[in-house]
Amino acid sequence: MIKRWSQIRRDPTPNARGGEGVTVFDHILEKSELKTNCRMFTKITLEPGASIGHHGHTREEDIYYILSGIATVYDNGETHKIYPGDVAWVGDGGSHGIANDGEVPLEFISVILTYDPPER
Amino acid sequence: MIKRWSQIRRDPTPNARGGEGVTVFDHILEKSELKTNCRMFTKITLEPGASIGHHGHTREEDIYYILSGIATVYDNGETHKIYPGDVAWVGDGGSHGIANDGEVPLEFISVILTYDPPER
Repeated sequence: MIKRWSQIRRDPTPNARGGEGVTVFDHILEKSELKTNCRMFTKITLEPGASIGHHGHTREEDIYYILSGIATVYDNGETHKIYPGDVAWVGDGGSHGIANDGEVPLEFISVILTYDPPER
Repeated sequence: MIKRWSQIRRDPTPNARGGEGVTVFDHILEKSELKTNCRMFTKITLEPGASIGHHGHTREEDIYYILSGIATVYDNGETHKIYPGDVAWVGDGGSHGIANDGEVPLEFISVILTYDPPER
């Protein structure tokens, strides 16, 4: 199947997980388009100053793969600057958040995979 | 967890799936680093003229999300040109391949998710 950029659902979300500014979620694939245990497959854009607040994950993994910009990642209590090509991920019981403290847009892939099969 | 670009395993593979040239797999995350049913989480680079040959998938989904360049995708018997921001994916019983017929490198994310839980 092919899906064009223009068909991808854009969901700008203010104060995502208690963060600052607007988090732009581009839902590359919807959960309903997949048969596996992927509940989110997105590209996320944070303008300078925007962030996704700290939040936890239970029985799932959330992967952030940086495409462009510089990310400040809160990863299980530690803070790291990460760059294009770097990856940050948390699993069951983990918590994280991400902020754009830089001067250019931050773009990254975020994929959430659940431990349990999807409910259909 | 954080993994830097320099720590990501690069695996240049000639004639991947019977294709032309070299397919460069950057294994962003290894299967062993994840607890969910993801058996491949990579960035793939194809130089002009390189391709991944036609191949099938059984009880798994393979997602190609285009980052840069132009891809010629063979998707279940149809051929499409797809561009940055577009996505192509196949599921159980599907077959696909991808070629760089353009003049600049083709980069894309490829994620393979299995229907069944991982063997541990």
